[in-house]
Amino acid sequence: MMISFESDYIAGAHPMILQRLVETNMESTKGYGFDCYSESAKEKIKKACGREDVEVEFLVGGTQTNAVVISTMLSDEEGVIAAKTGHINGHEAGAVEYTGHKVLEVPQEKGKLQVADVKQLIEDFYGDDNHDHMVFPGMVYISHPTEYGTLYTKEELTALSELCHSYEIPLFMDGARLGYGLMSRDTDVTLQDIANLCDVFYIGGTKVGALCGEAVVFTGNCRPRHFMTSVKKRGALLAKGRLMGVQFDTLFTDDLYFEISKHAIDKAEELKQMIHQLGLEFFLESPTNQQFVILENNQMETLKEKVRFGFWEKYDDDHTVVRFATSWSTTEDDMKALRQALQTL
Amino acid sequence: MMISFESDYIAGAHPMILQRLVETNMESTKGYGFDCYSESAKEKIKKACGREDVEVEFLVGGTQTNAVVISTMLSDEEGVIAAKTGHINGHEAGAVEYTGHKVLEVPQEKGKLQVADVKQLIEDFYGDDNHDHMVFPGMVYISHPTEYGTLYTKEELTALSELCHSYEIPLFMDGARLGYGLMSRDTDVTLQDIANLCDVFYIGGTKVGALCGEAVVFTGNCRPRHFMTSVKKRGALLAKGRLMGVQFDTLFTDDLYFEISKHAIDKAEELKQMIHQLGLEFFLESPTNQQFVILENNQMETLKEKVRFGFWEKYDDDHTVVRFATSWSTTEDDMKALRQALQTL
Amino acid sequence: MMISFESDYIAGAHPMILQRLVETNMESTKGYGFDCYSESAKEKIKKACGREDVEVEFLVGGTQTNAVVISTMLSDEEGVIAAKTGHINGHEAGAVEYTGHKVLEVPQEKGKLQVADVKQLIEDFYGDDNHDHMVFPGMVYISHPTEYGTLYTKEELTALSELCHSYEIPLFMDGARLGYGLMSRDTDVTLQDIANLCDVFYIGGTKVGALCGEAVVFTGNCRPRHFMTSVKKRGALLAKGRLMGVQFDTLFTDDLYFEISKHAIDKAEELKQMIHQLGLEFFLESPTNQQFVILENNQMETLKEKVRFGFWEKYDDDHTVVRFATSWSTTEDDMKALRQALQTL
Amino acid sequence: MMISFESDYIAGAHPMILQRLVETNMESTKGYGFDCYSESAKEKIKKACGREDVEVEFLVGGTQTNAVVISTMLSDEEGVIAAKTGHINGHEAGAVEYTGHKVLEVPQEKGKLQVADVKQLIEDFYGDDNHDHMVFPGMVYISHPTEYGTLYTKEELTALSELCHSYEIPLFMDGARLGYGLMSRDTDVTLQDIANLCDVFYIGGTKVGALCGEAVVFTGNCRPRHFMTSVKKRGALLAKGRLMGVQFDTLFTDDLYFEISKHAIDKAEELKQMIHQLGLEFFLESPTNQQFVILENNQMETLKEKVRFGFWEKYDDDHTVVRFATSWSTTEDDMKALRQALQTL
Repeated sequence: MMISFESDYIAGAHPMILQRLVETNMESTKGYGFDCYSESAKEKIKKACGREDVEVEFLVGGTQTNAVVISTMLSDEEGVIAAKTGHINGHEAGAVEYTGHKVLEVPQEKGKLQVADVKQLIEDFYGDDNHDHMVFPGMVYISHPTEYGTLYTKEELTALSELCHSYEIPLFMDGARLGYGLMSRDTDVTLQDIANLCDVFYIGGTKVGALCGEAVVFTGNCRPRHFMTSVKKRGALLAKGRLMGVQFDTLFTDDLYFEISKHAIDKAEELKQMIHQLGLEFFLESPTNQQFVILENNQMETLKEKVRFGFWEKYDDDHTVVRFATSWSTTEDDMKALRQALQTL
Repeated sequence: MMISFESDYIAGAHPMILQRLVETNMESTKGYGFDCYSESAKEKIKKACGREDVEVEFLVGGTQTNAVVISTMLSDEEGVIAAKTGHINGHEAGAVEYTGHKVLEVPQEKGKLQVADVKQLIEDFYGDDNHDHMVFPGMVYISHPTEYGTLYTKEELTALSELCHSYEIPLFMDGARLGYGLMSRDTDVTLQDIANLCDVFYIGGTKVGALCGEAVVFTGNCRPRHFMTSVKKRGALLAKGRLMGVQFDTLFTDDLYFEISKHAIDKAEELKQMIHQLGLEFFLESPTNQQFVILENNQMETLKEKVRFGFWEKYDDDHTVVRFATSWSTTEDDMKALRQALQTL
Repeated sequence: MMISFESDYIAGAHPMILQRLVETNMESTKGYGFDCYSESAKEKIKKACGREDVEVEFLVGGTQTNAVVISTMLSDEEGVIAAKTGHINGHEAGAVEYTGHKVLEVPQEKGKLQVADVKQLIEDFYGDDNHDHMVFPGMVYISHPTEYGTLYTKEELTALSELCHSYEIPLFMDGARLGYGLMSRDTDVTLQDIANLCDVFYIGGTKVGALCGEAVVFTGNCRPRHFMTSVKKRGALLAKGRLMGVQFDTLFTDDLYFEISKHAIDKAEELKQMIHQLGLEFFLESPTNQQFVILENNQMETLKEKVRFGFWEKYDDDHTVVRFATSWSTTEDDMKALRQALQTL
Repeated sequence: MMISFESDYIAGAHPMILQRLVETNMESTKGYGFDCYSESAKEKIKKACGREDVEVEFLVGGTQTNAVVISTMLSDEEGVIAAKTGHINGHEAGAVEYTGHKVLEVPQEKGKLQVADVKQLIEDFYGDDNHDHMVFPGMVYISHPTEYGTLYTKEELTALSELCHSYEIPLFMDGARLGYGLMSRDTDVTLQDIANLCDVFYIGGTKVGALCGEAVVFTGNCRPRHFMTSVKKRGALLAKGRLMGVQFDTLFTDDLYFEISKHAIDKAEELKQMIHQLGLEFFLESPTNQQFVILENNQMETLKEKVRFGFWEKYDDDHTVVRFATSWSTTEDDMKALRQALQTL
């Protein structure tokens, strides 16, 4: 089988998750998330967040989670501010707009929103005499790590949080790859910080060791009323909620989530060194598990025969940006095979 | 642990499914359903349907599937005809309406649409001079088995199919419990019949042995264009599509899907006999895995301490209708324990 | 030109309205309803309602008004209760569902909701253990006069109002033909009563003498926040709001609205007498401006050549129900011509 | 009364329109646009377009028209390309997103889309391996005149049209101020050109002499099926369609629409000369009826006491961009008063 650095969702689930699914399989439980495993997982996540006043809900995938959270938290007249490169803006097929809300696009730097840009948008809005004809800024969406693998600093997050709170709008963090952000060697942001600075965020499972599943954390009692019914209305309620429960319960037992995330980071650091040693050019060297490299088009074609990787974007007529992603499932053998393939380009 | 006849989604997955998930777990595959297991599962389902011109797509759950199929197949001016008791009409939190389409409610008998009623609605519509101000009948939705466990005969299905085709609207079958319908001792309808008579239908996994997943079958090239993008737009695209692929591939290997459905039917027949022997009163004795019994309220309270079952509806001030559901996971011990509990009422 | 009893929107506007439009035409005003005529009209309507704590907003047409009011007042998990024959349920092309909300259908008697039926629906909902999977009853919609020209009594309205308030959901009255209801000889309900018993209602202009326009009255500060932006978002904000302002200002000057409504009622009473004298059979003899008569099909065809009237529904193979509507614009000559035409059937 | 250059919708309707409304007022007509005036207006507009294969439909206002046209012509997976400054993107409260579709934002120059930018967006989309996860470019929206009063040349329109057709997506022109564009002294684009180059466009009434109303022109049989029902579903169907019919019939009799547009242009040219003579600085000197001038903030405050004008945007801490709009209703006296007010700044 061809080795793959195509994404962080190429393998199944961490083996301990499968083991727990097998062990609990024949137990009969209540449906729709009222099972004991979901309850236990929620408690463990609360504890990891270091706050008692949070509520945890499980959803199946990232796009679904973004659409559900955004559409249930926005008021009718509001839209959500996001970076031009934000996942909701470019790569979710218009799922937010499908719920009837606009994504208010703001420039980005390496995938990150700049506080000044967000401030400008909000101030321009309220400074405009005609703003009743415009979409109200009703939420700020950030991804952490971003689509480019970059991370917000604690200072940046704090500034965004303060800005949001001064306008009484929630700060929402898409943490589809949160584990990889938390275990980065270049971050000063902890899960507790996030729970303190964001109003709502999610801890990604799909890309960090689960078969599927995202754990949404609402802080400060901001969970929408009748959230379960709204989830059902959006076709997002899982009958066998235990599937989420068992997975997240396992991920948050004995720090498994953090350990497997660290593994991916270690492999990413190796990968970065390898790229440097081989004299290849970075498009963007990130502090997390995604690395963006510029390849000559013919190199790219050669490499394709041995390794799966992600197409990112055209660089110029002769070059292409490609993405290599490590994950919890990246092995030593994968790394060796990649080195070999890259060496012979 | 308390025994449960509460529903057919109280247990995990059939053990062979879990085994295959474990076996394939560390293989790296493409995402979003482009993996080899999804491909294989689709081929097996096609074969089981006995038609080459069908296309199979996997979605996660029943409400999601109903909303995705209905909203992508209806035109702007159209709504979907359903029985008053149809799942989409009463128990999906308005998921169809959330997509901007009306459910056109029609009376029912034991959960089933009557051809004459559907015909009446359509003829009244086209006979009304003002019908441009009304919602066009654009699809007929049926569940098989219905919410009451009842089944359409081949004759009834044929009549509905002919009616739909004479008005050029699709017939859509919600087969969340399809296996139990196909294995009923009182049916003359096969999977091939369904593939021939319906334009689109789904083979339920969640309630028939899978952790999650429904296999939608479009016949005669009626799959909407760019269906994958529409699925993504509705937050319903699973990154690790292999989770569906492996499950349905297993279910459609060596007739597992049919075998485990037959098991549930055998247990249901035992259950029906037991109810009769114990002199309890049926509200509705169905040919599939759901049985509806009238209990005195104090009997119901007593029973609750030993067995989990479904509350269905108030019968009168002193009686309640409750539901017992068997499934692929019902054991001989469950049956014994239930008999014991019912005997001592 | 053929005489017409087809509907109450066959003519332009009451001549005094056109006169005021001409007189004020060249004045320059602010847009979007911030003109002096809209302000004046709102004040006059407040006064007519006999309450200071109401807010008035103008919209263009009935279906638009229903969709805007319902979708801005419902919460995400809620739907609106309406009679099976309610305008929003059958004759607005699914405009409510287009906003993502379900119409919860309830039986009717002569177009009217029965308090007991509404109560039953709400109690069944809260009594159902699975109600989190269902659409919450979030509003009660009534039309007054109904689609059959019938009227609620003060006692009935009071009971509906009390029921709604006991569940903390708003009572919404569609008053597209409100004037004809208020001026009926068989009503004990005044505009003040309506303002006291309903949370939101509208005073129809389109069918009662205006070119277009409906005046929505919110009582008790229940107008949604940023209502103007929500109206704009639904494409319902008129740039030249003065068109509404001038019309309603005229209608609510010197009781014009009530006078012209009374004219229609007087003509309707004449019409009812005429039907009786001619020995024609009523399908429904209403206390307002719409009368429903059963004609033999060949009579109907003959009549069509001389008079325009509304097709209502097939009665049996040989008979049809037709509607005659009087309005503010019905003349003595119209009445004579109708009598002549009916006599010669 | 204070003179106003605030917008082109400050007055009522052109007097000949009101006169025709008065003359036809008591005639009884069919509703919903099936009256003889609507029919006549449609024929006259067809003739003015110089094409037989166009279909004309009337809607009430601009935002409504944009939302209805875009949402009925796009497929589920598609969004609409627009300039960042396009009216639908910034000043319609998210009305397009409310219909479930994304606005795909592209840079602009003086309010105009550049063909190269549109081409880039479409090519990038189809060149992206992951485009099934993205919103398909499904239509190009332009306004003509733009929000800055600027105009496309025939060459530019032709290039956009060819680009659209090469990708089989419609070109949609928002002509809310179309008359002022057609009568500009600096345009080579005629109404016939527009009918030949655009797939759908509208002829604005609200801002060009009508009380309300926009005439949508579909070319080449691209009108959506059951358009009337879709319009009703969006709450946009006017019961007294004659209000549109009479207005557009008058506007397209004896070239009234063009004459009154030319009047506004003549006044705008006078205004431009005046601004130059008085040594004021243009932010943008447009070829149509909107002119953008930079004023010192204290000048602006002084001017406010004598003249109404539009706030456009902050220029810097000491200056503001304001808009003066002429229209069909601008009088010689208005011009004199404005000159006097500007002279004394």
